[in-house]
Amino acid sequence: MKIDTIVALATPAGIGAIGVIRLSGPEAFVVADKFFHGKKLAAQKSHTVHFGTIQNADGRIIDQVLCTVFVAPHSYTKENVVEISCHGSAYILQEILGMALQNGARMAERGEFTRRAFLNGQMDLSQAEAVADLIASSNAANHDVAMRQMRGGFTQQIKKLRDQLLHFSAMIELELDFGEEDVTFADRDDLKNLLLTIQKVVKELLQSFALGNVIKNGITTVIAGRPNAGKSTLLNTFLNEERAIVSEIPGTTRDTIEEILNINGVAFRLIDTAGIREATDIIETIGVQRTLDKIRDAAVVLYIADVSELSPKDILNDLKNLEFHQTDIKIIVVLNQIDKFSSEQLQAYEKSARKTLVKYEPVIFISAKNETDVLRLKNALYEKTVGDALLNNNEVIVTNARHAHALQQADKNLTAALDGLMYGKTSDLIALDIRHTLHHLAAITGEISNDDVLGLIFSTFCIGK
Amino acid sequence: MKIDTIVALATPAGIGAIGVIRLSGPEAFVVADKFFHGKKLAAQKSHTVHFGTIQNADGRIIDQVLCTVFVAPHSYTKENVVEISCHGSAYILQEILGMALQNGARMAERGEFTRRAFLNGQMDLSQAEAVADLIASSNAANHDVAMRQMRGGFTQQIKKLRDQLLHFSAMIELELDFGEEDVTFADRDDLKNLLLTIQKVVKELLQSFALGNVIKNGITTVIAGRPNAGKSTLLNTFLNEERAIVSEIPGTTRDTIEEILNINGVAFRLIDTAGIREATDIIETIGVQRTLDKIRDAAVVLYIADVSELSPKDILNDLKNLEFHQTDIKIIVVLNQIDKFSSEQLQAYEKSARKTLVKYEPVIFISAKNETDVLRLKNALYEKTVGDALLNNNEVIVTNARHAHALQQADKNLTAALDGLMYGKTSDLIALDIRHTLHHLAAITGEISNDDVLGLIFSTFCIGK
Repeated sequence: MKIDTIVALATPAGIGAIGVIRLSGPEAFVVADKFFHGKKLAAQKSHTVHFGTIQNADGRIIDQVLCTVFVAPHSYTKENVVEISCHGSAYILQEILGMALQNGARMAERGEFTRRAFLNGQMDLSQAEAVADLIASSNAANHDVAMRQMRGGFTQQIKKLRDQLLHFSAMIELELDFGEEDVTFADRDDLKNLLLTIQKVVKELLQSFALGNVIKNGITTVIAGRPNAGKSTLLNTFLNEERAIVSEIPGTTRDTIEEILNINGVAFRLIDTAGIREATDIIETIGVQRTLDKIRDAAVVLYIADVSELSPKDILNDLKNLEFHQTDIKIIVVLNQIDKFSSEQLQAYEKSARKTLVKYEPVIFISAKNETDVLRLKNALYEKTVGDALLNNNEVIVTNARHAHALQQADKNLTAALDGLMYGKTSDLIALDIRHTLHHLAAITGEISNDDVLGLIFSTFCIGK
Repeated sequence: MKIDTIVALATPAGIGAIGVIRLSGPEAFVVADKFFHGKKLAAQKSHTVHFGTIQNADGRIIDQVLCTVFVAPHSYTKENVVEISCHGSAYILQEILGMALQNGARMAERGEFTRRAFLNGQMDLSQAEAVADLIASSNAANHDVAMRQMRGGFTQQIKKLRDQLLHFSAMIELELDFGEEDVTFADRDDLKNLLLTIQKVVKELLQSFALGNVIKNGITTVIAGRPNAGKSTLLNTFLNEERAIVSEIPGTTRDTIEEILNINGVAFRLIDTAGIREATDIIETIGVQRTLDKIRDAAVVLYIADVSELSPKDILNDLKNLEFHQTDIKIIVVLNQIDKFSSEQLQAYEKSARKTLVKYEPVIFISAKNETDVLRLKNALYEKTVGDALLNNNEVIVTNARHAHALQQADKNLTAALDGLMYGKTSDLIALDIRHTLHHLAAITGEISNDDVLGLIFSTFCIGK
């Protein structure tokens, strides 16, 4: 297949001081030289910048620009690349793109520059996927995991183990060739140890996916509790602004509200909910049903109660109800409105609560209104969900659903291969399980890939990357 | 005053494949070298590009980037400039900007890069102002005038004439020094000829401002006529989409609607109006008043009538009424709904109309519904407003209100100086008028400027330019 030359706007649409148009492909210089006047770009050294004008077919000057030249293979795509840095006018960008198209380039598809970078061996598939995550990153945590993945930290380990397994696979295939002669090239104990090592790594990576997924997409945090427990006030205190309508009328918050709270660089998707109680009208009924739905999808629930309204026993009942609706749920118990108590009252209440709610420790006492101990609550929320998983800077975290799926498949095949060894299955069956394992591990790095998979992956990119 | 180093995002905000952060100032390389790792930027040649990583104070890698180095005076600002091309993530851009600020740069004000380019002699003030116009340009016409201005076409002429006038001014000042001796260094006839030449150019430039202004801001085109004449249908036909609500009920269009129509690269701001007639309710009364207000501000009015409803005489009455409200108005008469006539009927009507409405020729017959002769109407609209003013590629057009004001002042002083010569005023008075003329001409190019004026001019720029 002949490789063509692609072009796209690489900077965001909209008016800005500058816009950058990127051309990549064997004809990149030839195309650009058709409308760039000043120097011949094809004759320039890689990594140099050149001033000139863009002129249309009538010789009208469209802009004064800077063109940066990257000569293959010393570019992002490993192809010839020209980046045209022009004034950020919609009209100018459109004209230059039009001229590139008229002179032999074609509009790049989503992620096509990165796809070429992958196909030309600049990066493996998992690294390419990380580029999109990196661009979408909005906080320290999801930036960090994307950056680690882009730098290959995640797949180097898999590649190394896969290479070892490939060696064993070759040995076993060799045994099959000599099938009649009953020879053994691959040491079964060594193979078993390697399979166990690989499975341990695969399982660890799979376990990291739960965390990786929430880091990438935010940790769904539902604020639930009876009417007037102070849910909206807590949300407002978290966000330091009047996001939700707070009123004295029970049942004010009918719809669910989502906001992002950033704790230590991790995004928590806060969802305020309607009070869980007998609804008084139809809209509230929908609100309550939504609350239960939201709790079902939540990574963690902040159960909040007004200490002046509910006894520790009432609260225990609420919590049991909550766990009845959703069994394997992470709950943080927040006892609010301590400002309504004298310090003696609070001390007595706290003593009783610590006893009754011992299963839910640490129970957090706060005053959302006065912002008392809200920071403590934030820390408890972070501990309960992220904990120290992010502290170890070398920890590998899987964030990509495609990778998680491949790891699951590899895990299954590893179990089958290990079972085969244990129960003395024939070599050809074990060899098949190992081949499947190799396949799934290779799918992560893209050593094995097909156009459909690539199409799907790069369709999530923006155009110009 | 010590020049500091400034930093800003140069590309539009929003997620894109890449974002560019620009640093300019004596310390640009020193600042960037604090967090860019790979090569020492301060040691690189101008106009070269370097791959490396951005690391924060903890050594955490924020991004893999390309840094372009421009060594003073070979840059836009004529200062040292570094452009950091990074992944277009909001988080990454924010982190890099933060590091630049922590390491001694300060956030650039609006237009500060271009302001430095002007102050360092890269361009004159009128050229600097054209940069903002160029970035905001959205069609061929306003792009063209901005580009001509940026390339200096407009001010070179003024500069040349000003230099000649400066020479005479010096001669006259010399005469004043020899005041007692009644010597004459400056030939009065030559001076008069020069003043007349300058005034001719100034007047031509002033005349071009009316056109320049509409090219820059769009030509206000009001579509007016009785209810059900087909105003909204015409607007929709122009725009090829259902923008206005069209209905059979007279008075549907209550509010005025604005849309941009592009004819030969010139923007026409189309304003559909409520029908001009006795209003039946209060909202429509407001609508009709607005119509008259809009007509007052319009550059051109498309008067549209239904040929099956109004005779040529009725139409003549409407037009006279329109001109009663606004005397010096450009009107294009559009006779619509010719689809309702047989060709015999149309022929008869056309003959009568051409006679009755001879003053308003060319009267355009159309069917907005069937799109018959709408292109002819577009051409008539363009002819009536822009005409061939844009055809001559060398024509200089003033688009900037500040320049127009300075030209007006210069014109006044030129008239005073010419009057002075004619009526034999003393040399010192003539010298004063010439000094004022020189001042106003210099204000356009920025040879004379002050901080307030510069502040005002550059405050209209975007940050990062």
